[in-house]
Amino acid sequence: MQGKTISQSVIRRLPRYYRFLEELHREGMEKISSRELSERMRLTASQIRQDLNCFGGFGQQGYGYNISELKDKIGTILHLDEKRNVILIGVGNLGRAISEHLDFSRFGFELTGVFDREPSIIGRKILNLSVRDVATLREFCTENRVDMAILCIPRTGAQEVVKTLYACGVHAFWNYSHYDILADYPDAAVENVHLTDSLMTLSYSMNEELCPTSGSNE
Amino acid sequence: MQGKTISQSVIRRLPRYYRFLEELHREGMEKISSRELSERMRLTASQIRQDLNCFGGFGQQGYGYNISELKDKIGTILHLDEKRNVILIGVGNLGRAISEHLDFSRFGFELTGVFDREPSIIGRKILNLSVRDVATLREFCTENRVDMAILCIPRTGAQEVVKTLYACGVHAFWNYSHYDILADYPDAAVENVHLTDSLMTLSYSMNEELCPTSGSNE
Repeated sequence: MQGKTISQSVIRRLPRYYRFLEELHREGMEKISSRELSERMRLTASQIRQDLNCFGGFGQQGYGYNISELKDKIGTILHLDEKRNVILIGVGNLGRAISEHLDFSRFGFELTGVFDREPSIIGRKILNLSVRDVATLREFCTENRVDMAILCIPRTGAQEVVKTLYACGVHAFWNYSHYDILADYPDAAVENVHLTDSLMTLSYSMNEELCPTSGSNE
Repeated sequence: MQGKTISQSVIRRLPRYYRFLEELHREGMEKISSRELSERMRLTASQIRQDLNCFGGFGQQGYGYNISELKDKIGTILHLDEKRNVILIGVGNLGRAISEHLDFSRFGFELTGVFDREPSIIGRKILNLSVRDVATLREFCTENRVDMAILCIPRTGAQEVVKTLYACGVHAFWNYSHYDILADYPDAAVENVHLTDSLMTLSYSMNEELCPTSGSNE
C-alpha cells in the first residue's frame, strides 16, 4: 500500500464504497461477492475488483470480500480512523442541522467549538457546547488544536473568518457558504457543498427528461 | 435557442453561472466584461464566451454582459421561471433545516406539503404547513399536483415512499437518503446529496495535501 499511488478517480469512489460496506456491516453481513457488491453499487464486478486491488486485493476466489476488513481498510485510506478537531462557524438552521444530524465521530471528527456572531445565539448550547462569539475565534484557535472548520455563514462573513482561520493554521474547510475559498487560498483543502446548485440541476433535468443526473453527485 | 442542443458539461456549469450572476445583480451591478466574470468564476474568458454563446451570445464587444438579462436567460434554460410544487418527506433536523434554510421560490419551487411518520411530529407547523402523516401520501398526491419530492428520511423508509410517489406520477427526487433510486427507477430525475461522502472526501484531501478537491462539487 505505502508509496503506491491511488488514482484520483478511485479515491473519488471510496466514500461510496465505504458507505455501502457500512450498511452491509450494519445489516449483519460478513462477506460479499464482487458480483453481489456490483449489483448493489451499480458498478461492474470487474470495476470493483480493479478498484479494490489497488489496496492489496481483499477478495479471495470463491469467498468474496470480508466486509468489516474492507470497510476498515478503506476507512484507513480515507483517514477516518484519525481524530481531528472540528469547529462550526454559523449556528443558523443549516449549521444546527448539520451539527445535530451528522454523527461526526463515525468519520473521526470531533466537534469542539461552535461560533456565531448573533448576540441572541451566543451562549446557547449545541450538542453540549456553548456557542462562542466569533470575535473570539483567533483566541480559540491559538489555544486549541483545530483541524477543520465547517462554514455555514453567508459569503460576506466567510471571507473574514477564513482569513483568521488560515492565519491560525486551519487549512481545511467544509464550505456551505458561497465564498470561493480556493480563489484566495489555492492550497487549502476544500469541499464545497452548494445545495442550490444541486436543486437547479434537478430543476433542469426534471424538465428535460435528461438521462439521470447521477453523474455528478452519486 | 430552440432545437439547439446544449452540451451536458455546459448545462452542469449553468447553476454556478446563475449563482454568480445573482450575486452581482444583488450587489447592484448592471454589466460585466467576460474578463471580470472570468476572474470571479475562475474560468478563462474564452471558456465563458464559448459557454454563453450557446444561448445566443449576450456579450457585446466593448460592453460586456447585461447581468440581469443573462441571469434571466439562464434561469429560463434551467426552468427556474416555472412553478413546480414540491413536497418534503421527513421533518427531522435535516428536513427542517432544508425547508427553512432554502428559499425555494427563488428557483420556481413551492413547498406545498410536508410529511413525517412520527406521531409526535405530525400536526406541527413547518413554514405554515401542517406536517401530515406519511400514510396519507398517496391520497395527497392524487388530489394535488406534486412535481418533485425531497427525501430526508433513512434508506429503509425511502424505498416504500418512492414506490408510492412513482405510482402517483412523481418522478423527480432531491434525494438526501441513501436509497439508490436510479437502481429501481432508471427514468427518474434524481439529484443525490450525500453529505457524508463530501465529508469523507475532505477527510482524505486534508491529510493527503491533494490538489484541491474542487473538481466534483464546485
